[in-house]
Amino acid sequence: MSSSSDRRSFLVLFQPAGKRGRFPAGVTVLDAARALGVDLDSICGGRGLCGRCQITTAEGSFAKLGIESASHHLEPETEAERRFRQRRGLAAERRLGCQARICGDLVIEVPTESQLHRPLVRKEADRRPVVLDPVVTLHHVMPEPPRLERPRADRERLLDALAAEWGLAGVDLDPALLPSLQKLLRQPEEGVTVAVRNGATVVQIRPGFRDRALGVAVDVGSTTIAAQLCDLLSGEVLAADGEVNPQIRFGEDLMSRVSYALVHEDGAARMTALVREAVDGLVARLASEADAAPDDILEWVVVGNPIMHHLFLGLDPTPLGAAPFTPAVEGAVEMRLVELGIRAAAPGARVHLPPLVAGHVGADCLAAVLAAGIHLGEEITLLVDVGTNAEIVLGNRERLLACSSPTGPALEGAQISCGQRATAGAIERVRIDPETLEPRFRVIGCPLWSDDPDFPAATAALPISGICGSGVIEAIAEMYLAGILGADGRIDPALAARSPRVCLEGRTAAYRLHPGPPEIRITQEDVRAIQLAKAALHAGAELLMERLGVDHVDRVLLAGAFGSHIDPLRAMVLGMIPDCPLERVDSIGNAAGAGARIALLNRAARRELAALAARIEKIETAIEPRFQERFVAALGFPRAPARHPHLARRVTLPAAPRQERRRSRRRRA
Amino acid sequence: MSSSSDRRSFLVLFQPAGKRGRFPAGVTVLDAARALGVDLDSICGGRGLCGRCQITTAEGSFAKLGIESASHHLEPETEAERRFRQRRGLAAERRLGCQARICGDLVIEVPTESQLHRPLVRKEADRRPVVLDPVVTLHHVMPEPPRLERPRADRERLLDALAAEWGLAGVDLDPALLPSLQKLLRQPEEGVTVAVRNGATVVQIRPGFRDRALGVAVDVGSTTIAAQLCDLLSGEVLAADGEVNPQIRFGEDLMSRVSYALVHEDGAARMTALVREAVDGLVARLASEADAAPDDILEWVVVGNPIMHHLFLGLDPTPLGAAPFTPAVEGAVEMRLVELGIRAAAPGARVHLPPLVAGHVGADCLAAVLAAGIHLGEEITLLVDVGTNAEIVLGNRERLLACSSPTGPALEGAQISCGQRATAGAIERVRIDPETLEPRFRVIGCPLWSDDPDFPAATAALPISGICGSGVIEAIAEMYLAGILGADGRIDPALAARSPRVCLEGRTAAYRLHPGPPEIRITQEDVRAIQLAKAALHAGAELLMERLGVDHVDRVLLAGAFGSHIDPLRAMVLGMIPDCPLERVDSIGNAAGAGARIALLNRAARRELAALAARIEKIETAIEPRFQERFVAALGFPRAPARHPHLARRVTLPAAPRQERRRSRRRRA
Repeated sequence: MSSSSDRRSFLVLFQPAGKRGRFPAGVTVLDAARALGVDLDSICGGRGLCGRCQITTAEGSFAKLGIESASHHLEPETEAERRFRQRRGLAAERRLGCQARICGDLVIEVPTESQLHRPLVRKEADRRPVVLDPVVTLHHVMPEPPRLERPRADRERLLDALAAEWGLAGVDLDPALLPSLQKLLRQPEEGVTVAVRNGATVVQIRPGFRDRALGVAVDVGSTTIAAQLCDLLSGEVLAADGEVNPQIRFGEDLMSRVSYALVHEDGAARMTALVREAVDGLVARLASEADAAPDDILEWVVVGNPIMHHLFLGLDPTPLGAAPFTPAVEGAVEMRLVELGIRAAAPGARVHLPPLVAGHVGADCLAAVLAAGIHLGEEITLLVDVGTNAEIVLGNRERLLACSSPTGPALEGAQISCGQRATAGAIERVRIDPETLEPRFRVIGCPLWSDDPDFPAATAALPISGICGSGVIEAIAEMYLAGILGADGRIDPALAARSPRVCLEGRTAAYRLHPGPPEIRITQEDVRAIQLAKAALHAGAELLMERLGVDHVDRVLLAGAFGSHIDPLRAMVLGMIPDCPLERVDSIGNAAGAGARIALLNRAARRELAALAARIEKIETAIEPRFQERFVAALGFPRAPARHPHLARRVTLPAAPRQERRRSRRRRA
Repeated sequence: MSSSSDRRSFLVLFQPAGKRGRFPAGVTVLDAARALGVDLDSICGGRGLCGRCQITTAEGSFAKLGIESASHHLEPETEAERRFRQRRGLAAERRLGCQARICGDLVIEVPTESQLHRPLVRKEADRRPVVLDPVVTLHHVMPEPPRLERPRADRERLLDALAAEWGLAGVDLDPALLPSLQKLLRQPEEGVTVAVRNGATVVQIRPGFRDRALGVAVDVGSTTIAAQLCDLLSGEVLAADGEVNPQIRFGEDLMSRVSYALVHEDGAARMTALVREAVDGLVARLASEADAAPDDILEWVVVGNPIMHHLFLGLDPTPLGAAPFTPAVEGAVEMRLVELGIRAAAPGARVHLPPLVAGHVGADCLAAVLAAGIHLGEEITLLVDVGTNAEIVLGNRERLLACSSPTGPALEGAQISCGQRATAGAIERVRIDPETLEPRFRVIGCPLWSDDPDFPAATAALPISGICGSGVIEAIAEMYLAGILGADGRIDPALAARSPRVCLEGRTAAYRLHPGPPEIRITQEDVRAIQLAKAALHAGAELLMERLGVDHVDRVLLAGAFGSHIDPLRAMVLGMIPDCPLERVDSIGNAAGAGARIALLNRAARRELAALAARIEKIETAIEPRFQERFVAALGFPRAPARHPHLARRVTLPAAPRQERRRSRRRRA
């Protein structure tokens, strides 16, 4: 039965879109979907190659709609479909929308995975729904071969095909791609797969049919660089990892980096080269893990604090180090990655750097807000992204305030006498018995508490090397709760008589956490460093609350590597974060990285970031006299332990560790 | 008298624009002109630095208009004006429009040189009026210094200033400029001068006030590369020169270059590197002649035949060598010059390559049409751009046809036994006495004819080394007119008995032009080579005439280096060009280069080129059977000398040379 000889037309309803229309016999389901604006994916442009337009037919009578639907209301399977079924597999009831031609009334179901703009599966730090809609899309086209009568040029035939097959008009082509285009169009029978950015610019052309398009989301932190390699066609994270920012050799905190750039003529250039190489190498490693070639990587999104942003772009960070803290650029920047010397990407691939809010609040902060979705809800939410600098955002969909607070590296375990980064062997959890002043603790890499009889054996191969940021917080909070520290943060020297854990060395005191070797102790200086850091956080949050005119917050979100490991109760005991019901405090992990990934996978999110940058009110702590006042006031601990509202729960808290211990025993059994 | 306290308003008429309006006291003439849309130039944005907004006031009563105009209806000279007058000079009656404030009714005259869009002075090959309107414009701005209360970024403050001071909204900035922007905005008191391309993109930022913006127009021919360095602010040509295309070592004609690329794997890449280096070096030399820095050069326009176009862009030219002659790209191409490895330009400067018409007709041909203006007039004009390939265009504003005809290198003196390029010592003019068969000639570098008694002395230091293309044409035309050649192009061997000038060597004959050393002769093979070349030209022109349905042309324009030296009468005698009244034949020089210059200086001309590319009907001689027929038919000479309509004039022709001889004698005296 030739479709062209059949003059009848049929009623077709697409579900779940609920769109319907009449189509002549012989029209493909894909064409019908496109005509109705139904979201049905395709890369191959209807050649039965990509399998992204799979549909099913609903069998039965839809009397209300006047449709009697049946799978035989589609013409039989085509040769292309048979080949696809053999080669790539296709569920029995599924048809390829581009092959299946309508020959009767139909109700067609479009499964979620066949929708181009399908909802993304949420990740750890995503607190809002996101739809897949990447800035780069793939299109397989078959440019017409050149004819002597009308010898149209390669570029023009390619653009004609994009317009004719995909409705993409007015597309431009990066002239750097012309040499490869020439070569590829010599084998016209295979066609080419074109990557189009923003529906406007061809950024890659590859031979034949391709259905791989990857993207990278990078969060460049002062201490850690984290990258995620994503599939732009599915939204999946294929590989993710982090590594230490090699700039750290020039100073742990941001201001040391700025000083290095100020003092050394090539300082900024060296740091730029280092961070680009590190990111490039990290992404190359992720690509190799995911068995991907650089050519598969078509887009990067990079977020970071303003100083990392400037260094990544090869800009001088020193103006960010002194008033008036002027960035070189605050709007989004887009450029070709090759211009930055990056090789872990296709030659035409672009990097997008979302806007900054101000000299001290960067795209990392915006991205965290984007992922956390605090700009979408009613609740007054405090988002704290703790790093060497803490970014603090407060507000809801009505109004958002942000500041950056110089917490310093103490919260990440640096500048603490026995501090170390959060790696295996670091003490990360601490409990102190208020009666005996004896501690117990856990180390990263071992699920047992130190008072477990199996602990020495379990940590034999895992030398206890120091204490990480979250461990220091817990230790100091517990020292406070046990009365070892006063409200002013002083270690009570009188306790040295009661417990050998408290020791005096000259005029300064310390608490011995672990006899060692190496001995791990919390010194009075350590307590002071944490007091300074937490006072900075507290003062920042308070300043924002005052500006917003609220005396409490509905929710606290802790982001960043440190934020995900911190114990909310103990953070609250120390006054790091405002009081709030414990169940309203969440650790959301690397929210900045999550936001970068959202901006990678959804182009509207980039507009959302730009709108956020324009909307967020920036409070400059460095010039705000109230900040200094509050900072000094916040150096002590907020209230006597006995009066703390959460203290009743404290005794029941070890439940979780115990569960872990049971699991761990099972594993060993 | 403070202008702000004066509430009156005054009638102002601008001449020659004829626009008028009422303005409050204290408004500057520049602001009034802008408000009325009067074309008054400015680079400094009204700071009295650039002097481009000079105006005069018309004194007297303009009763019909109700205006009593007087120079004291402008407030007195400002401090900035006094400084400008001292530093740069200002005619007594002139005022700076940006400084002069209105305080009475006025008639203001805007001199031509103060108009931004002033008409360009026409050059040799320009046959149509052009208005200066370059794609790159300069704007001096004073971005606000950053303030702590609102620490806006450098880029954003620059773009704000462009919008506020110049009304340029939505301008983008090349991210590669950000590092230099940072440095420049640290000295905010001087401001910066910004080069904006197409009113859309900042391509350069320089410190303080600058009023130099240069551009380059390049015509890349197979044999010669010609470049003109132009002032984008005045339209002046500051320096121009040409040099041999170094690719010539890979073959004189285009097809040899294509063969070289076919046979050698890196052939195209080597030719690309050679031509880019040559153009870059030539432009650097022009810049140094004009005392300009690469940073002053903000735009290039490059035209060339399709093969030169492809090689310049690093594209494979081999598809242009065989049917279907497919270019890689036919639309205009724009990219940054640094991407091509070009250094004789500012880092952000772009190159514009206008479109091709087809695989054999390039932007050089379009540019020649643009300069000659044949698409604007009623006359049916034949434009012949003779090079190794001849581009032939026929038509008028109604319809235009074009073809490329493979004339080969004979017309440029190559593949001729005693041929050479048109340099000093080459014979360029030839006359043969039909009675005695004795020749006289002139050589390049000496104004005397060879029968002048002073000729031997004058050429003693100028060895006669060969004969150039135009000399060969004249020699063969004269041989035909003297009866040495028959209509079939055969040298009459019987004449050897009558004159020692005609000699026989084996079976082939030759005509001895100069005894030498070296002896210069025109051989039978030379005549055949010219017959092939002129037949190609003739057949091409005839084919276009047939297609256009005309049996004559109203005008013939000869372009290209060869075209400017050829003698129209003798070209017609040989049948190289169709018959046409001699005064309707013009040599217009390098029209392609002139067209490139127009596209450099006027942005609308680029749209005109694009429209021409779409409009010109391309005739592919290689696949046109009528071309072969006509080519064979055109090998002979068109009519017996005795019947030639212009022959009567011929005897009176030597007048011009005699005048030259007198001049030359005066010079020696």
